[in-house]
Amino acid sequence: MKILVGYDGSNSAKDALALAKKHAGAFGAEVMVIASLTGGSVTHAVEVEHATEDLEWAKTFFDDDNIPCTTKLLVRGMTPGEDLVDYAGENGIDEIIIGIKRRSKVGKLLFGSNAQYVILKAPCPVVTVK
Amino acid sequence: MKILVGYDGSNSAKDALALAKKHAGAFGAEVMVIASLTGGSVTHAVEVEHATEDLEWAKTFFDDDNIPCTTKLLVRGMTPGEDLVDYAGENGIDEIIIGIKRRSKVGKLLFGSNAQYVILKAPCPVVTVK
Repeated sequence: MKILVGYDGSNSAKDALALAKKHAGAFGAEVMVIASLTGGSVTHAVEVEHATEDLEWAKTFFDDDNIPCTTKLLVRGMTPGEDLVDYAGENGIDEIIIGIKRRSKVGKLLFGSNAQYVILKAPCPVVTVK
Repeated sequence: MKILVGYDGSNSAKDALALAKKHAGAFGAEVMVIASLTGGSVTHAVEVEHATEDLEWAKTFFDDDNIPCTTKLLVRGMTPGEDLVDYAGENGIDEIIIGIKRRSKVGKLLFGSNAQYVILKAPCPVVTVK
């Protein structure tokens, strides 16, 4: 079994990693963690650096519990939602886990377009974590 | 661990039950299946009968694999989304699983208001199945 996690370094995404660890342990699954950047003129070098560091942190997080984990930074002109769904299809993913905590200025929890896209388009069950 | 499934007898909800069985087996969890009807003048007796039959079917589905399962028909004037979230909070649920397949007349997959409500308001991770 393969679990895919979209990771952007946010607290909500960290909760997604923690749940992925729990699921991987229970299912004997391997975990793939991806970060997504659009690339081209809209992505700065410092963002690539941060995303790379985030993925290294995630790798260590799973290594600590001997859970097989691969990480990948996708920079191919797609939104994070599109990247996750496409990657899941290309790699035979069984479950996607995403953090969805996004708040408006008045503190209301928002439904991000990436989360909606993943839930509606994913080829497998999607677990959302707040 | 406790897994809550919202069940309305649809194919998408049956897929949610199947995933709940898989998760319950892996986590050694118990499953609670609820059906939700608004009640009062907007709910007909035949709907109560159908929902009761649906829940009996779900109970047998888990009994067949010796997975602890309780079922409950909620008729308390709330939407299915509100019922699921409230029930999860009241019963210390660790994971909610829901089917989300709803299509428009032109076949486009829609995001139902109940699914959105559950994902944004649930006190625990939510697994969506199409």
